[in-house]
Amino acid sequence: MVTIDPERFRETFERYSEIGRTDADGLHRLALSEEDREVRDLFVSDLEDLGLEVRIDRIGNVFGRAEGTDPDAEPVLIGSHLDSQPYGGRFDGQLGVLSALETLRAFDDEGVEHRRPIEIVNWTNEEGSRFKPALMGSGAFTGELDLEEVLEHADADGVTVAEALDRIGYRGDDPVGPREEYHSSLELHVEQGPKLEDEGLSVGVVEGVFGMAWLEVVVHGDADHAGPSPMYSRKDALVAASDVVGAVRRLSNRFADDVVTTVGELEVAPGSINVIPSEVRFTVDVRSYDDAVVGDLVEAVEREVETACEREGVEYDLEEIWRIPHTEFSPTVAETALAAADAVGASHRAMVSGAGHDASYVNEMTDTAMLFVPSVDGKTHNEAEFTEWADAEEGARVYVETVKRLANAK
Amino acid sequence: MVTIDPERFRETFERYSEIGRTDADGLHRLALSEEDREVRDLFVSDLEDLGLEVRIDRIGNVFGRAEGTDPDAEPVLIGSHLDSQPYGGRFDGQLGVLSALETLRAFDDEGVEHRRPIEIVNWTNEEGSRFKPALMGSGAFTGELDLEEVLEHADADGVTVAEALDRIGYRGDDPVGPREEYHSSLELHVEQGPKLEDEGLSVGVVEGVFGMAWLEVVVHGDADHAGPSPMYSRKDALVAASDVVGAVRRLSNRFADDVVTTVGELEVAPGSINVIPSEVRFTVDVRSYDDAVVGDLVEAVEREVETACEREGVEYDLEEIWRIPHTEFSPTVAETALAAADAVGASHRAMVSGAGHDASYVNEMTDTAMLFVPSVDGKTHNEAEFTEWADAEEGARVYVETVKRLANAK
Repeated sequence: MVTIDPERFRETFERYSEIGRTDADGLHRLALSEEDREVRDLFVSDLEDLGLEVRIDRIGNVFGRAEGTDPDAEPVLIGSHLDSQPYGGRFDGQLGVLSALETLRAFDDEGVEHRRPIEIVNWTNEEGSRFKPALMGSGAFTGELDLEEVLEHADADGVTVAEALDRIGYRGDDPVGPREEYHSSLELHVEQGPKLEDEGLSVGVVEGVFGMAWLEVVVHGDADHAGPSPMYSRKDALVAASDVVGAVRRLSNRFADDVVTTVGELEVAPGSINVIPSEVRFTVDVRSYDDAVVGDLVEAVEREVETACEREGVEYDLEEIWRIPHTEFSPTVAETALAAADAVGASHRAMVSGAGHDASYVNEMTDTAMLFVPSVDGKTHNEAEFTEWADAEEGARVYVETVKRLANAK
Repeated sequence: MVTIDPERFRETFERYSEIGRTDADGLHRLALSEEDREVRDLFVSDLEDLGLEVRIDRIGNVFGRAEGTDPDAEPVLIGSHLDSQPYGGRFDGQLGVLSALETLRAFDDEGVEHRRPIEIVNWTNEEGSRFKPALMGSGAFTGELDLEEVLEHADADGVTVAEALDRIGYRGDDPVGPREEYHSSLELHVEQGPKLEDEGLSVGVVEGVFGMAWLEVVVHGDADHAGPSPMYSRKDALVAASDVVGAVRRLSNRFADDVVTTVGELEVAPGSINVIPSEVRFTVDVRSYDDAVVGDLVEAVEREVETACEREGVEYDLEEIWRIPHTEFSPTVAETALAAADAVGASHRAMVSGAGHDASYVNEMTDTAMLFVPSVDGKTHNEAEFTEWADAEEGARVYVETVKRLANAK
């Protein structure tokens, strides 16, 4: 069995975590920022130290290739992303890239032979915080996003992705997209939910990702004076919207056990203490592993919006702004990971992910699965994000063993 | 009976409405803006044309004084305000000032004798949109607000009231406050609600103003990822806040017939479509003519906040940021106005106001009442604000007659 070097793994993690570290031990390393440049430079240097062939494509995805013993074999793709949310955590993305790096280092230490080439990748702009959309690098690479279009997307200051890539020196020459067929792909990530911790497990083998839909609703009422306007005459956009917020919460109890429903954005105009709200814009996020349930949820939300607005006598616009079916990862890769977890002796379970990942896009291109390690209290996308180091190590052990098996698979 | 000149009254209204007129026939004339300067210049010039003694105090209140036949009699104070809400209407405030101006012109036309001096006033910054607080000029004049403190209040650009007064040349020399005892005061204003229109009446004699309380609530939840966070683990600040919005609406049906309740401001953080809201700040406005009911409402809102937050497992801070008891206007002045309305033959009713007015502060200083004219659809504080001209005229007729009676009262 290949063994990782736990001290090196942890020291590398700490070193990478210094770049963009926040006062509260989080990470502020937005895609294509100066901090992103710095961490990319370190990553490239670490790949070169391993003697890997490094290449950078036109969207800034960074690849390192370790050749296998069979020059004609299809490669295995491993890695994740190094960008962070604004004032996010140190584990989201970074732990996956560094587990892949530790895998190649462990192979190098022990001269582990692998028939297939192994490619390690750092995907550009997974988070989508500075530049929309999220999963940009993997989406462009797999052809799910239009490269020329996303290069022109601008941040809040009007800087485009292409310009930001130029500024940090990571607009590579390589064409974006696979040069050959891949055999398989594996991504390690923090769970971002509480299930593994609740069950006292170290590793989750992720067999799929929820389907989801996003709705945007704008409610149009009348902005009257909060004093002299009797209740019967009011058309209060916030009263109607609040009814929908409550209904969306209750819809999580409908249709299936795994349903999650969220209103994340809600803006009130004119937003004055003594004026009845005339316009409220809000979003609805509904998810389930069952695409039919997502469809049922969307219809149910539409009915709730209609009912709440009719009750209050207000008008509304409703738009479904995004819908993505559930992802079923490769049973072959997942079974390989489950067997590797058994072999390593790591406590584990099979599970599905409520959040999208680069692996979702990569799965469209080649057989893919993921490993999850626990997130303490399920916290993510903030500075308190944390994974017990013993769990991170256990995840890396399963990762290395799984990659070894994939890289030697027939 | 004194008669107004309807054509002059309307022409004057149209002329004043040109200053700060919006494309949608509303009025954008913020306190102490360039437009406010222009309309003040016109007002001063109109007062001088009537031969009035004009004076301007240190907070920019503009007074014009028509002496009476008895030099020792206490004067009657009439007027309202010429500033507007941002993109507000033409009637709010302005109609009251111009009804007072038309009153003095009508007296002048016919050489109507009045025993008491009559003072016309344009109060500075009634709206409170650019500079907080509202009712600034009347509040400082009556000693309810601290003059030196409000002079230092700044707008969003950091310009203080004192600087803005200097810029438009309306930081007068006169001390702020009454130079002598007043006999009484009368203000005409648009109703800003639908009651007069609903009952087909032209004039309301306002006998008082609602008491009210303002609460600010901040709910503290946890910003977790909308996908992988199971429903049971969520602490969603918006779900709790929305429950309170619904409860606040339902509380309008409690305690008394006249209760109105409003959530006007509500802000969500971090405000991302796939992140559970971690913090929601919102305001609650509760009003009734009965101060005990306002107290009951505040307690009921506090209980609802506590219950909703406990249900969701979130924390909160709640602050009562303002409470003002109801105002009872002078029965003597109101009865004079009712008798005048009968004499004029105007359709009318006695009523109370849900909104605060300069007259509320003035009532602390001298016997005061108000006249309301109808607001079409109850609309106010927006460009669609409208009063049928026949009603505006009828209101002015009752106003002139009431002022005549007050100015000759023993």
